[in-house]
Amino acid sequence: MTIDFSALQRHFISIRENKTFETFVIAIIIISALVIGAKTYVFNAQVGLLFKVLDITITLIFLAEIIIRMIAEHSLKKFFSKGWNIFDFIIVTASLIPVDESEMALLGRLLRIFRVLRLVSVIPELRILLNAFVKAIPRMGYVSLLMFIFFYIYAAMGSIFFSKINDELWGNITISMLTLFRIATFEDWTDVMYETMDVYPFSWIFYLTFIFIVAFVFLNMMIGIVLEVLQREHEQFDREAGEGEAGEVHWIKEHTESIEQRMERMEEILVDLHKNSHK
Amino acid sequence: MTIDFSALQRHFISIRENKTFETFVIAIIIISALVIGAKTYVFNAQVGLLFKVLDITITLIFLAEIIIRMIAEHSLKKFFSKGWNIFDFIIVTASLIPVDESEMALLGRLLRIFRVLRLVSVIPELRILLNAFVKAIPRMGYVSLLMFIFFYIYAAMGSIFFSKINDELWGNITISMLTLFRIATFEDWTDVMYETMDVYPFSWIFYLTFIFIVAFVFLNMMIGIVLEVLQREHEQFDREAGEGEAGEVHWIKEHTESIEQRMERMEEILVDLHKNSHK
Amino acid sequence: MTIDFSALQRHFISIRENKTFETFVIAIIIISALVIGAKTYVFNAQVGLLFKVLDITITLIFLAEIIIRMIAEHSLKKFFSKGWNIFDFIIVTASLIPVDESEMALLGRLLRIFRVLRLVSVIPELRILLNAFVKAIPRMGYVSLLMFIFFYIYAAMGSIFFSKINDELWGNITISMLTLFRIATFEDWTDVMYETMDVYPFSWIFYLTFIFIVAFVFLNMMIGIVLEVLQREHEQFDREAGEGEAGEVHWIKEHTESIEQRMERMEEILVDLHKNSHK
Amino acid sequence: MTIDFSALQRHFISIRENKTFETFVIAIIIISALVIGAKTYVFNAQVGLLFKVLDITITLIFLAEIIIRMIAEHSLKKFFSKGWNIFDFIIVTASLIPVDESEMALLGRLLRIFRVLRLVSVIPELRILLNAFVKAIPRMGYVSLLMFIFFYIYAAMGSIFFSKINDELWGNITISMLTLFRIATFEDWTDVMYETMDVYPFSWIFYLTFIFIVAFVFLNMMIGIVLEVLQREHEQFDREAGEGEAGEVHWIKEHTESIEQRMERMEEILVDLHKNSHK
Repeated sequence: MTIDFSALQRHFISIRENKTFETFVIAIIIISALVIGAKTYVFNAQVGLLFKVLDITITLIFLAEIIIRMIAEHSLKKFFSKGWNIFDFIIVTASLIPVDESEMALLGRLLRIFRVLRLVSVIPELRILLNAFVKAIPRMGYVSLLMFIFFYIYAAMGSIFFSKINDELWGNITISMLTLFRIATFEDWTDVMYETMDVYPFSWIFYLTFIFIVAFVFLNMMIGIVLEVLQREHEQFDREAGEGEAGEVHWIKEHTESIEQRMERMEEILVDLHKNSHK
Repeated sequence: MTIDFSALQRHFISIRENKTFETFVIAIIIISALVIGAKTYVFNAQVGLLFKVLDITITLIFLAEIIIRMIAEHSLKKFFSKGWNIFDFIIVTASLIPVDESEMALLGRLLRIFRVLRLVSVIPELRILLNAFVKAIPRMGYVSLLMFIFFYIYAAMGSIFFSKINDELWGNITISMLTLFRIATFEDWTDVMYETMDVYPFSWIFYLTFIFIVAFVFLNMMIGIVLEVLQREHEQFDREAGEGEAGEVHWIKEHTESIEQRMERMEEILVDLHKNSHK
Repeated sequence: MTIDFSALQRHFISIRENKTFETFVIAIIIISALVIGAKTYVFNAQVGLLFKVLDITITLIFLAEIIIRMIAEHSLKKFFSKGWNIFDFIIVTASLIPVDESEMALLGRLLRIFRVLRLVSVIPELRILLNAFVKAIPRMGYVSLLMFIFFYIYAAMGSIFFSKINDELWGNITISMLTLFRIATFEDWTDVMYETMDVYPFSWIFYLTFIFIVAFVFLNMMIGIVLEVLQREHEQFDREAGEGEAGEVHWIKEHTESIEQRMERMEEILVDLHKNSHK
Repeated sequence: MTIDFSALQRHFISIRENKTFETFVIAIIIISALVIGAKTYVFNAQVGLLFKVLDITITLIFLAEIIIRMIAEHSLKKFFSKGWNIFDFIIVTASLIPVDESEMALLGRLLRIFRVLRLVSVIPELRILLNAFVKAIPRMGYVSLLMFIFFYIYAAMGSIFFSKINDELWGNITISMLTLFRIATFEDWTDVMYETMDVYPFSWIFYLTFIFIVAFVFLNMMIGIVLEVLQREHEQFDREAGEGEAGEVHWIKEHTESIEQRMERMEEILVDLHKNSHK
């Protein structure tokens, strides 16, 4: 029995590494995505039945695929140590729960939508991009926190002063923050401003300082952080590949090291020669 | 006969390299563009006739020009190996097809518009710019694909939840994606949001996460990639010209190499001296 | 008595350095912020009383905290030499002024809002971010001044030509500048333009040149300055940590120095050897 | 007489270099700007008279200042060789032309507005910023030209297809380009799109490709070019000041040169020593 399992495992590893298998999985995910899109158009009962059959087939293929990958891995623990595997497992098992009842149907449809995200976990280039994005999160987190504090302060001020003017825009702090987010995207922000300027003629200071701080400073910081993360990755790649300026600097560094070692040897010889000449 | 052709070829090469010929071609393209623009204004029959004559003249000059360049090239194969030549050939030959029938007239006018693009193929600086843009395409492609996946997921969710609220904005997945593109450009996005918030008060989460992911993260990535491509080209130019930081690093690299070679020679002499002194 | 104070000081320093104390202060600031937010919702008298009690408690805790930090410092002069301390002191003492009278109530509420900013002074990462932002201010100041001059010139032109067309948008130079700021954010700017184009058909030149100069050139300069400040800080960090390209360049510089010194020593020996060999 | 003039010249040079004189001129320019702004508010006849007197005084001071600077210069040719001097001269002399007649009054007011620009020519930091901007113009010119070609092609297509739908937006190529510029700023672009989509359901392709090419690609290129120009200047400053990475690279380059020279000397000695030892 153990031998059988090990043979099965070897067989499944070869399947997993197979290029055709990979392409097949990508094709299934794309079909799954197309089905989700097609469902948003109105169709008759016959097409609905076809979609149901397709849906079950896709679910079964995904199930088979994840079982193959789980067995191909050395241990379940190792399988679940990769974030993408956990993501795939949740998406696939959640699809298995029958959702025919009208109440759960919506949740079922939502889960099927997230299957499309599996494309990201299957195509390596997209995985790299998303990883770069994830790397930028901690630094973007602090900028977002600072931005949130400014939003909160302006929203509190907005609520205190403007709630009597327009309750729908400044009624409480949550609504005020939504209104400020709208202002940060420049979406009809002058309508909001002109309304409050009728009561407080100097309220334009509130809006202008807010736009200046949030839209100009913080958004630029966001751009700056994304650019830096991209540049750092590109520099590191260059250093390792020996290309570009970063590659040349790395080359010089390594050769400076070998020059130093050679000079040490030469100095020793020289000192020795010197001693001899004075004998 | 062969001698005749070879003489013709030599003659045509000299024409092609001629600065006046180049300026003449640019002038004709600009006139062609002006005719296209002038046609959009309403004119009487007389001016219409003038345009017809001008159009035929321009078509013939373009035909003559491309024949000269084809003959001036060593072989047709070499001529068609350049992307810009294929582009020019298609534009010119397509203009030859008579399009007087009302049905085809529109296509004919469209083709004539694309003649303006020949400016790009004629002016070297624009060709360089467009090449830089083309170089950025593969990397931008993956960012666009990732963006498309997020658009697709959000559009599917939007269709499921909001199609009953506003069929014109969320009717099916294609319309939903168009609506999301509109939201990504911040164009009246709050109108779309407030409408759905009447039914789902928490639907602002849908819009805010979408704007945050697409407008802030992906657009920044786009900026990052374009900047990197520009910077890389600039760095490479500097390296070759020996200018700027990249040029200095390259200089240091080359001189480090020559220092190493000199040291190797010196060490050999030293070792030899050392041996002699111990003799 | 002096011994007592010194013991108290040592005790307070240990409190200030305590991690639990820091977390406690952050928690109090967050509670203070939540109270500010909660107040914007309508509540009955009972909840109002609870808020009053909470407010007094928070004010007292803040007072206690700042007194601890003042005593823990070696001298009051040193305490007030740090900008953040002055900021904290103003916020806390201003909260002590009783603001129960209806007239001052608004000011009191405003001051309580600024307490949220204390989060920035307490969390080090946010302090670093804000410092980076402050460093960019002088250079951004000149860009802003240049931008302001262009705004002023365009606003004066706008007032002269368009005040008769729409007094609400172009009535005087202040209103005109607000209208131009609106145009710079692309907010319904075509409505403004189409209105004046009815009288001056060529007024689109006014708007297009303005958008080109302000929105494209100056905003890019702002991005450029923020990016440069971020990059410079990152470069300096790399240099000190010996990481990345900047770190490698710094390493090479230092080793080039030691190579030079070693070569000097070697040359001296060589010259000495040479002299001896000629004796 | 010549001696007199030379003494006058020396006297005027000392005035020109005087810090108080510079501050005085800046103050006058600011007063001139404030008068321009104040004029846009409605005033009675008395204030109008005051403005007239102020205006004449300012004009005379400017005239005196430019004459001082002209005489302080070695020759008129040298004076007019600087762009900023020509600019100042035109602004000042143009103000001298009497513009009391109602027809010319508008032109006179316009010329007085441009006096504000003299602030840029007087404050060195602003002059540096504007120079950096001017340096970016040639490269931005080609990007603008490429952008213009795309605008022209899309405008021609828009006129052909959509002029029947909305003559006010797509009537001729000039109007179409203005509409496209509006779309590039995302200003109510969906209103334009939905209108044409009623007739051509696939016209969204026209708008989406245009936004993608112009708003995403070209604007990023603009950002890229401005950033590069800023970075290049900053790098050059660092190199000369010996600061930052660029400064360190430059230091290494110079020291590598001196290392090479020293090694050449050492090799010569070594070769000589070697020859002697073999004798």
